Order: sequence, then structure tokens, then C-alpha cells
Amino acid sequence: MDFSIKLNDLAARTETALDTLVPALPSGAPSGPARIHEAMRYSLQAGGKRLRPVLALAAAELSGGEDGLSAALPAAAAIECVHTYSLIHDDLPCMDDDDLRRGRPTCHRAFDEATALLAGDSLLNQAFLILADSYGDRPALAVRLIRELADTASGRRLVGGQMQDLLAENAASEGRPPATAADLEFIHLNKTAAMLEASLVCGGLVGGFDDRRLETLRAAGRHLGLAFQIVDDVLDATADTAALGKTAGKDARAGKTTYVSLHGLEAARSLAAQETEAANAALRALPGDTGFLLQLADHMLRRKN
Amino acid sequence: MDFSIKLNDLAARTETALDTLVPALPSGAPSGPARIHEAMRYSLQAGGKRLRPVLALAAAELSGGEDGLSAALPAAAAIECVHTYSLIHDDLPCMDDDDLRRGRPTCHRAFDEATALLAGDSLLNQAFLILADSYGDRPALAVRLIRELADTASGRRLVGGQMQDLLAENAASEGRPPATAADLEFIHLNKTAAMLEASLVCGGLVGGFDDRRLETLRAAGRHLGLAFQIVDDVLDATADTAALGKTAGKDARAGKTTYVSLHGLEAARSLAAQETEAANAALRALPGDTGFLLQLADHMLRRKN
Repeated sequence: MDFSIKLNDLAARTETALDTLVPALPSGAPSGPARIHEAMRYSLQAGGKRLRPVLALAAAELSGGEDGLSAALPAAAAIECVHTYSLIHDDLPCMDDDDLRRGRPTCHRAFDEATALLAGDSLLNQAFLILADSYGDRPALAVRLIRELADTASGRRLVGGQMQDLLAENAASEGRPPATAADLEFIHLNKTAAMLEASLVCGGLVGGFDDRRLETLRAAGRHLGLAFQIVDDVLDATADTAALGKTAGKDARAGKTTYVSLHGLEAARSLAAQETEAANAALRALPGDTGFLLQLADHMLRRKN
Repeated sequence: MDFSIKLNDLAARTETALDTLVPALPSGAPSGPARIHEAMRYSLQAGGKRLRPVLALAAAELSGGEDGLSAALPAAAAIECVHTYSLIHDDLPCMDDDDLRRGRPTCHRAFDEATALLAGDSLLNQAFLILADSYGDRPALAVRLIRELADTASGRRLVGGQMQDLLAENAASEGRPPATAADLEFIHLNKTAAMLEASLVCGGLVGGFDDRRLETLRAAGRHLGLAFQIVDDVLDATADTAALGKTAGKDARAGKTTYVSLHGLEAARSLAAQETEAANAALRALPGDTGFLLQLADHMLRRKN
């Protein structure tokens, strides 16, 4: 199948899974839950690229064929719930204070801060509810998926990386030294790469890969995540807000340490290509048809938003 | 064993479990994760009454003896993590905007808003990580515990109840009619009672109760939760801030619909006693020595903070 057709197909299957697993509440539902579900779905349906679910589905297909792919749809939806929760909370005024996300008003702009906070909370929680519900008949698998996702979203990884990022941003105003290259790598390994690792690993878990192959997927996810973040930094420095769907040029205005500020544009681009190649080398070591995943890595390197 | 001694013993065992399962990070840990864990532990260790973990442990002992009680310690810790997350987020400026909790500055006052938001996120997530880790060798049990807690914390229940409460608080200023008695019951069934139900049910699950007995525990939790909330409303109207450990008199100042504003003080006290009796009737239908749980229900009715 042509790469773009397959990419769109996997993204569309993710949309359907999200629509089913994070439903709108029927009319007549109490107004509190109805508003929360409306805000959850507003942010979920804002038309993201669904890269993390697509990675999970592709890894599930590689490890378990079409059956593996179908079985991984709830895991893919749970991953997108965690990703969307992290975006909603990161956009809040006390965090990055952003008005635009995926080309639309952020959740707290479309609703209000309290609703956005609670919708984010509910999406994080919903991820675990989806995994427990959907894989309840394979409880050992369910527990491994939940463990993987909870470890990824933990204070040591996703949330810890976001905290480290905020500390780095406020370093100058609080009289601390700026972030180093090592700080930057820590932030991106945990704030960005962790979720890409988990996406590939969860897909591989559903499809039935053994532990050694799961760790190969994890390594690929780590390199893809670093490449993804470097490309993000390059786009923030070079693209405009309309193309990006979120506010551009924020890093430079904030005096933020990025791959671009540390290494310059050309070296950053070259680093992104190196990380992509490292991811592809890991993927090529796996059995089966890795063609789609290799093309996806290239697509992520060349993305414009 | 004397009631107070047992109550203190179960609370102390909860403290130890929390200290083990939500550890401080070793010196040299990256500053982001270290700060998040510090804030998580600040709020966890603020000396709450540990009623929810104690309920879980008592239900586990009733259903599974001392072995059941010991096995339920991680579940009890996970429940307290979810409860503490909900308090941290409820106290934030965009929610109830409170400065005092359990007699100490709220998390966002002791740290800052971003840290409190992330520490809350991380505690919710940590609950599921604890359950997946601690019960991984009994995966069917782990999945049922995770499902119970995730359903309780969901947009339909805990978060939905909090949203409904905020909508009720803002009704007057937004030109909507005030909350009715039915609205109030919905809020408290979901914002308060849901976690007490889950505490008893999780304890019963670990101890091995069958589904029928679990539903009896759930009914007891629902009545206990309503009694608990009515007592909260009475205390807010009658106690002072020092005794309460949180800001007193907020409901009346906010013109909030409460059991006291709807029914008056005496009728509210009488309703709390009725709900406690209904909880006790459910508990008495269970096998084994329910003495401690009955005394605990009475203790919760008579509490002063």
C-alpha cells in the first residue's frame, strides 16, 4: 500500500477508536460530566497528526499482523489520550500559556481553565480505563500495557521532563545558569521521546514481540523522539504560525535553550537526520516488513508542522 | 483491639506504604523529577486522616483476614494518591483557590502553580503504576483494581462531580438557577462518595469477596460518603479554620448550596445520622467481625475536622 494511503488509513482507524472509546455523553447526562466529555473530545478531535497511535499500530502490525493491528486500536487510543492530556495541561496559563494548538484555540481558551484542567485529568485517567476495559480478557497483557504507559507518564519521565523544561525556561529570570546540552537531552528524552518509545513498545506488546525485540523498538522510539524534538526546534525557528498550527518563534523570544540555539540551524538539521538514521538502523534489525515504519521515520524528519 | 489503637495502626501502616511506594528521589536525580516527587510527597505527607486507605484496609481484613490486610497496602496507598491528586487540583486558583489544606499551605502555595499541577498529574498516574507494579503477579486482580479506581476517578464520577460542583458555584454569577437537592446529591455521590465506595470495594477485591458482597460494600460506601459530605457541610458552617485545618465558612460566603443551606443545621445533622445508619445496616449484612468498620462509621459521623 502507498505510504500516504496507509498513514491516512491508520490515522482514520485511530479517530474511530477514539470516538468509540471516549464517547460524548447522551443528552440528559448531568451537566458536569457532559461538559468534561465535550472538552475531552474537543481537544482529542482537534486534528492532530496521530503519530503516536500510528507508531503503535505499525509496531503491532509488524509483530502481530493485521490481527495485531486491530487488537492494538484501544492501546493506540489510550496513548493519544495521554498525549492530549499532556498538551492540554502544558498549554495552561501557569505552564506554557498558549492560545493555539493544532490550529484551534487551546482547551482553556475554548472552555475555561478549570474545565481544561479537569478534561486533562480525565483524559489521563481515561487511558487507564480504556486499557483495563479493552484488555481485561488478557489481564497479563493489560497490566504490561498499563505499566508501560504509567511509567512513561510518571514524575520520572513525561511529567519530570516537563518540570525540567519549566525550570530551564525560568532559569534566567531566577538567576540560575541556563540549560546545558545534557539538560536539553534529559528534557527531550523524557518530555518527547518517552511517549514515542511507549507507542512502539505498546504496539509490540499487543502484537506479541518478545522482550528483546521490545527493547529494539524502544531504542528506535528513543532515536525517533530525539529527531522529532530537534525538528520541532527547527520548525519553531523557521516556520510561521499558520503553517505550524501553534505559535511559532516562541523559543527565541523566550531565550530558550534549544538544539537550534545550542548548535545552529544546519547542525540541528544534521543531528535530526542522524537520529532518524539511528532509529531506522534499529527498525531494520527487526523481522518482517519494516517498510512503512522506515518511511514514517523519514516523513517525521521532513514534516512541516 | 481498641478502636483508636487500631485506627492509628492502620493509618501508620498506610504512611509506611506511601513512603515506600512514592519515594523521594536520591540526591543527584535530575531537578525536574526531584521537584515533582518532593511536591507529591509534601501533599501526601500533610497528615490527612487516611480515612480512605483505612476503609480499604478494614474491608480487606474483613474479606481476607490479616493476609488480606497486608496485601491491600499498595491498593490503600494508590487510593490515597488519587485522593491527594484531587485535593491538589481542587485547591488550584482556577478551581477552589484555597491556601490551606490539612493545616498547611496548599501545594501551589508551598511550591507554585505549575509544580502543583504536575505533582497532581503525577500522583494520579502513580496510583495506576503502583497497582500495576504491586499486583502484577495477580494480573486479573490488578486489572479489576485499576478498572475500579479509573472508573471512580473518571469524567463520569470524581472529575464529573467536581465539574458539576464548579458549575453550581458559578450558577448565580452566570445567571443560571441555583443547584437543587438533586444536583447536590449528584455532586456528592460522585465528588465524595465515589472514592469511599472504591476504597471499600478495592479492599474487598484484594481480600477475595465475591461480587455480591462487593456490591454490599459499595452500598455501604455510598451511604458513608453522603454522611461524610453532610458532616463536611455542617463543619464548614460551625467549626473554625484552626480546628478544621482548612478555610472554614467558605460555603456561606460563596452562597453555595449545601445540605445546611437546603435543610438547616439540625435536619442536616439528622440526615448524616440516617446515612450512617444505612451504611451500618449494609455492613452488618456481611460475614465476619464488622465491629471496627461500624465504629469507624460512627467516628466519621462525630469527627471535628
